[in-house]
Amino acid sequence: MRMAIQDCYPDELSHCYGCGRNNPGGHQIKTYWTDDGKDPGSETVAHFLPRDEHKAIPGFVYGGLIASLVDCHGTGTAAAAAYRAAGREPGSLPPLRFVTGSLKVDYLAPTPQGVTLELRGRAVEIKEKKVVVDITVTADGKLCARGQVIAVRMPESMAPK
Amino acid sequence: MRMAIQDCYPDELSHCYGCGRNNPGGHQIKTYWTDDGKDPGSETVAHFLPRDEHKAIPGFVYGGLIASLVDCHGTGTAAAAAYRAAGREPGSLPPLRFVTGSLKVDYLAPTPQGVTLELRGRAVEIKEKKVVVDITVTADGKLCARGQVIAVRMPESMAPK
Repeated sequence: MRMAIQDCYPDELSHCYGCGRNNPGGHQIKTYWTDDGKDPGSETVAHFLPRDEHKAIPGFVYGGLIASLVDCHGTGTAAAAAYRAAGREPGSLPPLRFVTGSLKVDYLAPTPQGVTLELRGRAVEIKEKKVVVDITVTADGKLCARGQVIAVRMPESMAPK
Repeated sequence: MRMAIQDCYPDELSHCYGCGRNNPGGHQIKTYWTDDGKDPGSETVAHFLPRDEHKAIPGFVYGGLIASLVDCHGTGTAAAAAYRAAGREPGSLPPLRFVTGSLKVDYLAPTPQGVTLELRGRAVEIKEKKVVVDITVTADGKLCARGQVIAVRMPESMAPK
């Protein structure tokens, strides 16, 4: 995927603090396929360099930030996988926009600051209204966290009026 | 507890983006006992008003922020409960400082913006090196999320030099 899935979201659904291009103060996380994204085993990737203030203990990244990265890379991967499963172009209307139903993160090792983190995602279950995404977070090749996001199609009640 | 547990942490362990008083750009989450904190069933409470930018979809709070609040209220509750279990004054040395081993959040309903969120925590398992904390997040009395934090004693390898 040349474009990040988040850059294919409609403008009115692009204000997320984690990944919205229309949220200038947010993290603006970008999720890409690592290949052409056509294979059920295709992985997604995102990169993020935490700011100095994103610390837990000096020298180590704040776990809440890691959870935020997992969250948005999870819903992004869910959207990308749902478009693929439907045989549709990413961003084509009506939008396939997912929100987080459940988030789990296991912190396996302290995550060093000053390093660009790599998130890898894989959709392990894809249904029309629910996609499960497994995620790893590495720093300099070292596995620091594993996450799982249960992403659900955005309910109508959340749609901007 | 008159003081927040986070305000009892030593200065060098108070830089957390979520709850450190020495992180001016952070969330500065504060965890208090709801009573004198001496009962095994005592609950903790924290309040937080998300900023406008902390949105997912316009009108609704970003799930990654909710995960961050759960994270720090969880480790804070763990520290408070560990001091209580040890019969020690909060903040007495050596510090009982916990970090997150595992974090799980179930998002039960979209969380409205513009409302001060209330987090309630309860330590459901207390061991020397591990405390499990259950947390609820409500907005205007409505239950929006449930979380569980498995907090572990901060390893020596993370201690500031």
